[in-house]
Amino acid sequence: MQDLTTSEVYSLGIVSAVCLAILFNAFQSNGEPLYASLAIGGLAFSFSYALIQWTGDVFVRRGYKGRDLSKKTRPEIPEAMGLVSALVYLLAIVSFLPFAFKRDIVAVTSGGGNKDLRLDIEDIENGRFLHRFPLEKVGHLHAALHNLASYGFAYGTLASITILGILDDSFDMRWRHKFFIPAFAALPMLALYFVDFGVTHVVVPLPLRPYFGELVDLGILYYLYMAAISIFCPNSINILAGINGLEVGQSLVIACLIILNDSLYLLPTVQQPHPAADSHLFSIYLLLPFVGVSLALFRHNWYPSKVFVGDTYCYFAGMLFAVVGILGHFSKTLLLLFIPQIFNFVYSAPQLFGLVPCPRHRLPRFNARTGLMEPSVATFSEEKPLIPIVGQVLKLLHAFKLLRIVQDEQGRVVESTNFTIINLWLVWRGRLREDRLATELLVMQTVVGLVGLWIRHKLALLMFTVDNRF
Amino acid sequence: MQDLTTSEVYSLGIVSAVCLAILFNAFQSNGEPLYASLAIGGLAFSFSYALIQWTGDVFVRRGYKGRDLSKKTRPEIPEAMGLVSALVYLLAIVSFLPFAFKRDIVAVTSGGGNKDLRLDIEDIENGRFLHRFPLEKVGHLHAALHNLASYGFAYGTLASITILGILDDSFDMRWRHKFFIPAFAALPMLALYFVDFGVTHVVVPLPLRPYFGELVDLGILYYLYMAAISIFCPNSINILAGINGLEVGQSLVIACLIILNDSLYLLPTVQQPHPAADSHLFSIYLLLPFVGVSLALFRHNWYPSKVFVGDTYCYFAGMLFAVVGILGHFSKTLLLLFIPQIFNFVYSAPQLFGLVPCPRHRLPRFNARTGLMEPSVATFSEEKPLIPIVGQVLKLLHAFKLLRIVQDEQGRVVESTNFTIINLWLVWRGRLREDRLATELLVMQTVVGLVGLWIRHKLALLMFTVDNRF
Repeated sequence: MQDLTTSEVYSLGIVSAVCLAILFNAFQSNGEPLYASLAIGGLAFSFSYALIQWTGDVFVRRGYKGRDLSKKTRPEIPEAMGLVSALVYLLAIVSFLPFAFKRDIVAVTSGGGNKDLRLDIEDIENGRFLHRFPLEKVGHLHAALHNLASYGFAYGTLASITILGILDDSFDMRWRHKFFIPAFAALPMLALYFVDFGVTHVVVPLPLRPYFGELVDLGILYYLYMAAISIFCPNSINILAGINGLEVGQSLVIACLIILNDSLYLLPTVQQPHPAADSHLFSIYLLLPFVGVSLALFRHNWYPSKVFVGDTYCYFAGMLFAVVGILGHFSKTLLLLFIPQIFNFVYSAPQLFGLVPCPRHRLPRFNARTGLMEPSVATFSEEKPLIPIVGQVLKLLHAFKLLRIVQDEQGRVVESTNFTIINLWLVWRGRLREDRLATELLVMQTVVGLVGLWIRHKLALLMFTVDNRF
Repeated sequence: MQDLTTSEVYSLGIVSAVCLAILFNAFQSNGEPLYASLAIGGLAFSFSYALIQWTGDVFVRRGYKGRDLSKKTRPEIPEAMGLVSALVYLLAIVSFLPFAFKRDIVAVTSGGGNKDLRLDIEDIENGRFLHRFPLEKVGHLHAALHNLASYGFAYGTLASITILGILDDSFDMRWRHKFFIPAFAALPMLALYFVDFGVTHVVVPLPLRPYFGELVDLGILYYLYMAAISIFCPNSINILAGINGLEVGQSLVIACLIILNDSLYLLPTVQQPHPAADSHLFSIYLLLPFVGVSLALFRHNWYPSKVFVGDTYCYFAGMLFAVVGILGHFSKTLLLLFIPQIFNFVYSAPQLFGLVPCPRHRLPRFNARTGLMEPSVATFSEEKPLIPIVGQVLKLLHAFKLLRIVQDEQGRVVESTNFTIINLWLVWRGRLREDRLATELLVMQTVVGLVGLWIRHKLALLMFTVDNRF
């Protein structure tokens, strides 16, 4: 068991103490759940930071380990440690529930200080409560119950993706089986949507209204759309990976951008209560603890990595984004924050679907002499030839600087950089040290995401009648 | 991959086809969820039966395997295969949700045929629905939402115990760490209870009312009581184990007895709608698919076992019983169905807590010559001596036929049968073949459970004013 350093013990101890004080206060005062959520995020950070440190050896002993090929010494470090973050996250969300609902439900039903509600002995014996409250409170309680169900199913979905992540990290699964794994985990959320929301109408953009009307009922297509998002988000994070800190880093960027977007609906300058405020609070409450556990993992996973995160973390993060996007009704906005991942997915497709020969690993190549990262390449030989027309396309991509190829004397393409955004970045920027590469990619992602949000809120008016923020 | 035999393929195919037809019909007709639940149970049986057969090899390859020490050849078979049942179960529960709530929520909110509800374009854009329904439906919708939240958190709790079960089966954990594992998984359920039920009053039995009044508020003690049940149920099943078929068999007996008890509240002879009917339907809907997946596992795990079930299954089963007992408000009745497990737990305590030396394994001993099972023993030597007073107690237990000991010439206890109900049964009944032993234990458990239920419904009137069934 690896111990924490003294300074780590002090820092984590202080963070935890402050957060506990905030929590205690929040519970006493029926205060804002937002403070409680922040405090739980802080506790989740401290706890997972320490737990990752403590349990690394256990993971290695049980065979969850891997070599970091982008270092001179190729050190062997624990693998799949994002599992710790996922477990702490689940614990954090459950701990948050009493704070989220204390005012709304507990006060109404348990009779604590609420004299409108009398408990009768038959009620206890028969287990029937909850049906004598003042009528004006019904709507409020209703929304709270509805919300409570969402937390339950969100938790169930995230616990399910954790199970499937563990199985994926434990059993070696083929890529084509793995790809659909997240769809199973998304089922609780889809079932909740069917039962509780059930709305499959979408608003038609202005230019198309003459043809389709204002609303179109997508019916079962809408469920397929939600399933597709649940499959895409986890997988797209999982394949934009391979250098220290990138999996957790990109998840943190997305989480922070979603929180930023959520905040736009909750600002005092927006007319309150905004009808979508509840959805965005739900999103913030789910994301703050995630930022906590991810920051802890990021500290351990950043260059030079002391641990690997594993598929569990990538699936978990992607599924969490799908959950808040779908249950929070902002799945289109969510996709704007996935632009680099979408690009990487589309760009990867020729290799993923076998149009271009794909080597076992596509992560960039570490040059031990310079200590820098270079684009990795796929080579095409007599045994693994390139279809001629594909070769022409590669030459075109090369001309547009979207690829780098090597041709032989006859003009045949014999080598090309692998089709990932990471390699493409190295084609554009030249050799980079691993941490520099990760930083640049994360900055790029942040900028693209901010532009995406700007487009969504400023330009939405051109396509729809209103931006729902106002 | 092990294929199914032709007759298995036909039987499973027919079962599945019939169940699918029932499901299709149930969905079309807004019919009784009970039929849908039965059909899903049948599908869950077929699916997990086939999946266990197909994936056994994969488990063995990944190191999940164990030797069956109670056979002459000591065959090596897959271990922890209850995981398959747990996963199929989770899938089954999610599939059931649309049937459970189709009439109650979907019809009210999605506007399908319900013209009271109009969807406005702003509602879609703002994500606000669900607040314009006829007032008389409010109470009904309310109960349904409440119920929906229960399903969500029940699912979350069961998914959590599955995660912890996998970790327990993957990492070798110490007994004293394992013991409290289920408490973590129970947190979602306890949080739901706090938020949504919040009632910690219990009805005082008649003889005690002069001292305590009709109702006593146990407050935090009530949460400790629920946590204790959540810890006890999974662990007590996990330690009543070691012979082919016993873990699954005892879980099936308990599940069927709970379903029997639930049915008592739903009979046409009982005044309907009975106030506790919803809780008991909830319990039945959760248990029927469990019976399905468990029967499939039982077929593979019964003597001579082709697979072991693992801690995952025991935890999962125990936690499911805790969930239906607690959220269904019949935790005391539940404990009556755990009498053999409670006896075994109390009886085991001297060894579990180190009062009597405890060997690594306490399962009964297989006599390769006779092919029969005999009680296994713990021996006490100079190095592992018995405290004298404990020796006196063992002699007393021996006299009451609650143990079998061997004494040396000085009258010191040098050997005793291990403290489990399985060994005790062999002390009483003599040598038995393994399947005979398992059958007798299961019959005993069924009889004890039926007597428990009889006591609960007939004698409850002596302790409380009413039996809540009438």
